[in-house]
Amino acid sequence: MSAGTLTAEAILAATEEVLRRYGPAKATVVDVARALGVSHGSVYRHFPTKAALRAAVTRRWLERTHEGLAEIAAGDSPAPARLRDWLTALFAAKRRKALDDPELFATYSVLVGEDDGVIAEHVGHLAEQLTRIIAGGIAEGTFAAAEPAVAARAVFDATGRFHNPVYAAEWSAPDIEAAFEAVCSLVIAGLRAPR
Amino acid sequence: MSAGTLTAEAILAATEEVLRRYGPAKATVVDVARALGVSHGSVYRHFPTKAALRAAVTRRWLERTHEGLAEIAAGDSPAPARLRDWLTALFAAKRRKALDDPELFATYSVLVGEDDGVIAEHVGHLAEQLTRIIAGGIAEGTFAAAEPAVAARAVFDATGRFHNPVYAAEWSAPDIEAAFEAVCSLVIAGLRAPR
Repeated sequence: MSAGTLTAEAILAATEEVLRRYGPAKATVVDVARALGVSHGSVYRHFPTKAALRAAVTRRWLERTHEGLAEIAAGDSPAPARLRDWLTALFAAKRRKALDDPELFATYSVLVGEDDGVIAEHVGHLAEQLTRIIAGGIAEGTFAAAEPAVAARAVFDATGRFHNPVYAAEWSAPDIEAAFEAVCSLVIAGLRAPR
Repeated sequence: MSAGTLTAEAILAATEEVLRRYGPAKATVVDVARALGVSHGSVYRHFPTKAALRAAVTRRWLERTHEGLAEIAAGDSPAPARLRDWLTALFAAKRRKALDDPELFATYSVLVGEDDGVIAEHVGHLAEQLTRIIAGGIAEGTFAAAEPAVAARAVFDATGRFHNPVYAAEWSAPDIEAAFEAVCSLVIAGLRAPR
């Protein structure tokens, strides 16, 4: 591959393959360059440091994992149903990633943990979507909350067992669906405006 | 020390010291016996296997960590206040253990993770206490829940960020108290009977 055709996307795809093959502890920028048949200088022209490359590939993976969630948050169904759909979709996406390709999931869990900035940005995006749903509920009169952003973060924290990768080993347990339903119902009830 | 005076409690105390000194990966029953000046056979008379000894010391540590919680659960203040007190005491106890002696906390986190039976028993005890509080709330008319035991488990799951050791690194964050308050209020609101 000539340096002229080397795109950031091609580098990220190759980086994911290298991470899969060597694991997050051993994968290097030189391995990525070798996989692409380019010099490591060509890779550094797109990503100035190894950390920047790892953050970019992690961000890309997180975006891929959570595609579709923003659309649910922006929907126009009643907020309680929309919140349930959003939490269900988040759990389903995480669980699919964890169970379909456990090695890659573990690799990305390490990468996510390496970079506080990437986590903060990611949680920030999800919290914004939750805030949008809760603010919509307040506007339509189904939810009550003094501060939608605070309530959003509480919902995110309260449902951590169903999206935080540290719990991935529990996501194939037989009672996990029932546990999810119970927590989901509890937090939605907690947001409901008094009738 | 002669074998005659060797109590289970002395073995457990010595095991904790050995775990602290060598770490959970390296500590052996022989180390425990040496620390006590007895043969490893004397230790095995009290605990038939290394796993049994580790489970017993873990159980003892968990009980010590959570002393006082059962009394709160059995109290007679209104259930919403009692639930808040209980969750606050649980978080405070866990946080104190994690921050005061991080090495021992990490050691016990490894041990707890080693034995599914010990975790299940421990979570079972805490869930029983939560069930008692929630059932009390239903009886006095402050809480509504179809199945107190299911609601109890949902409350336990929803507050995991404030008691599960995997989150210990976050317990000294400046915003952790506010996050705890927000989740606590959300779950208590979620249990409230319609007014």
